[in-house]
Amino acid sequence: MRVDEIARFLNASFTGDGSREIRGVAALDAAGPDHLTFAEGARALSRASSSGSGCILIPLGTELEGRTTIAVPHPKLAFIRAASILAPGVAPPSGIHATAVVSPEARLGPEVSVGSGAVIERGARVGARTRLAAGVFLGEEAEVGEDSVLHPRVTVYPRARIGNRVILHAGVVVGSDGFGYVFAEGRHHKFPQLGGVIIEDEVEIGSNSTVDRGSLGTTVIGEGTKIDNLVQIAHNVRIGRHCVIAAQTGISGSVEIGDFVVMGGQVGIGERVRIEDGVRIGGQGGILTGKIVRKGATLWGTPARPLEVFKRQYAYLNRLPDLARRVRELEKQMLNDE
Amino acid sequence: MRVDEIARFLNASFTGDGSREIRGVAALDAAGPDHLTFAEGARALSRASSSGSGCILIPLGTELEGRTTIAVPHPKLAFIRAASILAPGVAPPSGIHATAVVSPEARLGPEVSVGSGAVIERGARVGARTRLAAGVFLGEEAEVGEDSVLHPRVTVYPRARIGNRVILHAGVVVGSDGFGYVFAEGRHHKFPQLGGVIIEDEVEIGSNSTVDRGSLGTTVIGEGTKIDNLVQIAHNVRIGRHCVIAAQTGISGSVEIGDFVVMGGQVGIGERVRIEDGVRIGGQGGILTGKIVRKGATLWGTPARPLEVFKRQYAYLNRLPDLARRVRELEKQMLNDE
Amino acid sequence: MRVDEIARFLNASFTGDGSREIRGVAALDAAGPDHLTFAEGARALSRASSSGSGCILIPLGTELEGRTTIAVPHPKLAFIRAASILAPGVAPPSGIHATAVVSPEARLGPEVSVGSGAVIERGARVGARTRLAAGVFLGEEAEVGEDSVLHPRVTVYPRARIGNRVILHAGVVVGSDGFGYVFAEGRHHKFPQLGGVIIEDEVEIGSNSTVDRGSLGTTVIGEGTKIDNLVQIAHNVRIGRHCVIAAQTGISGSVEIGDFVVMGGQVGIGERVRIEDGVRIGGQGGILTGKIVRKGATLWGTPARPLEVFKRQYAYLNRLPDLARRVRELEKQMLNDE
Repeated sequence: MRVDEIARFLNASFTGDGSREIRGVAALDAAGPDHLTFAEGARALSRASSSGSGCILIPLGTELEGRTTIAVPHPKLAFIRAASILAPGVAPPSGIHATAVVSPEARLGPEVSVGSGAVIERGARVGARTRLAAGVFLGEEAEVGEDSVLHPRVTVYPRARIGNRVILHAGVVVGSDGFGYVFAEGRHHKFPQLGGVIIEDEVEIGSNSTVDRGSLGTTVIGEGTKIDNLVQIAHNVRIGRHCVIAAQTGISGSVEIGDFVVMGGQVGIGERVRIEDGVRIGGQGGILTGKIVRKGATLWGTPARPLEVFKRQYAYLNRLPDLARRVRELEKQMLNDE
Repeated sequence: MRVDEIARFLNASFTGDGSREIRGVAALDAAGPDHLTFAEGARALSRASSSGSGCILIPLGTELEGRTTIAVPHPKLAFIRAASILAPGVAPPSGIHATAVVSPEARLGPEVSVGSGAVIERGARVGARTRLAAGVFLGEEAEVGEDSVLHPRVTVYPRARIGNRVILHAGVVVGSDGFGYVFAEGRHHKFPQLGGVIIEDEVEIGSNSTVDRGSLGTTVIGEGTKIDNLVQIAHNVRIGRHCVIAAQTGISGSVEIGDFVVMGGQVGIGERVRIEDGVRIGGQGGILTGKIVRKGATLWGTPARPLEVFKRQYAYLNRLPDLARRVRELEKQMLNDE
Repeated sequence: MRVDEIARFLNASFTGDGSREIRGVAALDAAGPDHLTFAEGARALSRASSSGSGCILIPLGTELEGRTTIAVPHPKLAFIRAASILAPGVAPPSGIHATAVVSPEARLGPEVSVGSGAVIERGARVGARTRLAAGVFLGEEAEVGEDSVLHPRVTVYPRARIGNRVILHAGVVVGSDGFGYVFAEGRHHKFPQLGGVIIEDEVEIGSNSTVDRGSLGTTVIGEGTKIDNLVQIAHNVRIGRHCVIAAQTGISGSVEIGDFVVMGGQVGIGERVRIEDGVRIGGQGGILTGKIVRKGATLWGTPARPLEVFKRQYAYLNRLPDLARRVRELEKQMLNDE
């Protein structure tokens, strides 16, 4: 693809050699003469001057003397768009592998791809163009929408519902039983885990993460929410739209999370917590059972508190030895005075 | 099933319309006219008055004017029992799927179900009515008892022993090598991981959790213990009976845990810790290597300390800025006095 | 194998009955008359006197009156070596199981073993004597070196490169997409995850751990590094040689880790952190985004600080109630003085 064609695709204009052939994308420091890259921010732009890249996406209003560039409002976003055509994922051939086990009572849309050893049980439905990789398991009456990708060994329990353009990475489990017991007569009795689980459109979930079904209600992950590897979502949790949840975070039962919430890695959310829209929680933070976190708050630590409070407490903690020394000093003076 | 039949099954008496037909169970707020639900506690009971439920399990000695109810000593427990007949899990047909690979030298009890692509190696044994779902792997000489359920993609390493009525959710790994090395000559040498692993009766383990085999000894998870998703149990750990371990908790090597211990999510237990019966550890708590936690203690934080100590320290930490201000004030006064 | 033969194999000399037949290895307290065991340190040596073991590896310069022993510079290391011949792992028959799906365009070295249901895609390469267990997935153009073992259900995404003598335990995922998005126009746009992932020689990775591919660069795990269960390694991370990373630790994107670094369990490392050689980080410790940890440091807590600082702060925190009482006392005295 030529530089001028890429510029046209991005509705942008180029500077330099429009006829240059670009064959792929690369990071700024690794890009060669047939690569497209991008530069945002002063430091990246200065490194870009000496980059070997064939073409650089730069912010509107900037320029790079002597380089072939395309100026766009948001270089990183433009890079994503260009990459989607310069380095498309290799789609496997559609069709059902001879070793897949597909129930005659399952319904598959057109151009669905089913990998070797995948299992699709009775009553399950798979939308058009969705790819189920090798070893994927779709339980009875489970549903997956259109244009979704389930990577190898994803397990979807019966009746789970997964939307369109969803990506589930290898080893993800959707719809397993929640963790609920009643203690009586000296042992734990398993509470019914009969509820549903809904993964809405454009959700992505990282490798080996787990999402439990509701006990009697429904577990919901809202549209556009992105979840990293090894994350735990318990039963009856409701997560809103366009949230970002980093690796190894755990969300306990019946937690409600609004839209546009961001959580760092290894965050722990106690049962029945309510987190309003736009909240941000730093890595390893912990929210105690039953708490409500108000809209837009930025929290840190365990128990989580506002970032500025955390910082101030931490600073005082650092100065504690000094404070103790000063109290000793005062006591000595007081003694001398008497 | 009619209300009067359910009451009889529960050894309880009903009030209202005993002939009403009940076809399933539901949560209090979602229940319809053919659903059974339950209410415990004043708030639930008041919501129950306006619930659309066909029949409500309520505590002995309470009543709900104008509603069809069954009074029982423990409504939630009775609900579990009723659900076991009103909403039974769908048992897959017993038998061995044509794509399963079962060694002729494995021994399977009557009515065992083996899903597609499951693998049962030489010398493995599976007890009566146990269900191995699609893609389950049972290594050489591994054993599973009766009436157990191994969900899709569970991996059981050679010689692991799993009891009766055990539930292992999708992606669980039992019997992988523990994490043990000897550092010498500039690199880590793998210590032999030859020991056993025993999962006793009525244990349930959540999705993608991992249980390592012993190095030379044996890893044991005691009867009735319930383990959530993404939990790590290291080599030579011994967990007692009827414990509850929430998601993402990690138990290091050679830890000993008594009976009826409860751990929140993301707890970390250091090597060779000993935790006595009935201990409770709050979410994200950490117990340092080698510690002993005495019977019945409730701990919190890292390093974990008694809950009341943790709370008091936290309260003082919150007041630190104020304390520092007061010390400054005293210093000023002292200076003025001189 | 006779005691004198074991001694010869270890280049060491024995005391006692050299003709005794040894058939296996065991822990000190469990060893019987045909077992080899080892004792290091005063306590183990005193327990060793009354052990039932047929032969005990002891440190050079020590002796155990009346017992058959072999004296070696490093008993635990010698035990590892002896175990490798006394208790070798059972190698499965080499060859490709009839149910495995191997692309005709994949290249397999001699004596490769491929388990039932394993999938090897087009262009993948597997080195001599490597064992791919049941259900392993090797994506297109993925590579595994010689003498490696991939346990059941390991998933290797396309183009990932795995070295020689590597061990990947059940459920490990190598090469899944990193967690990278650009927020624009009200939603998260997936940043291309096109980079590579390299697992160097003699790495071992525990069950259900996940290693993401680079976004544009490469994720690297250096030679001899050992990683426990349920660990998360994000995109573009570079880990050096001979590190040890305990269970449930998470390493965020673009982190650089030197050689011989040791991390406890549940450690969290923020994005772009740089950790120099020989650093040790205690369990549950957290390193904030962008930090540099200098060579040889031992850190603890979140935010992580030097162990001695952490201990001192913790001690002062414990004494805070007392400090507050003393400040109150001073205030009272001051008031009386006026």
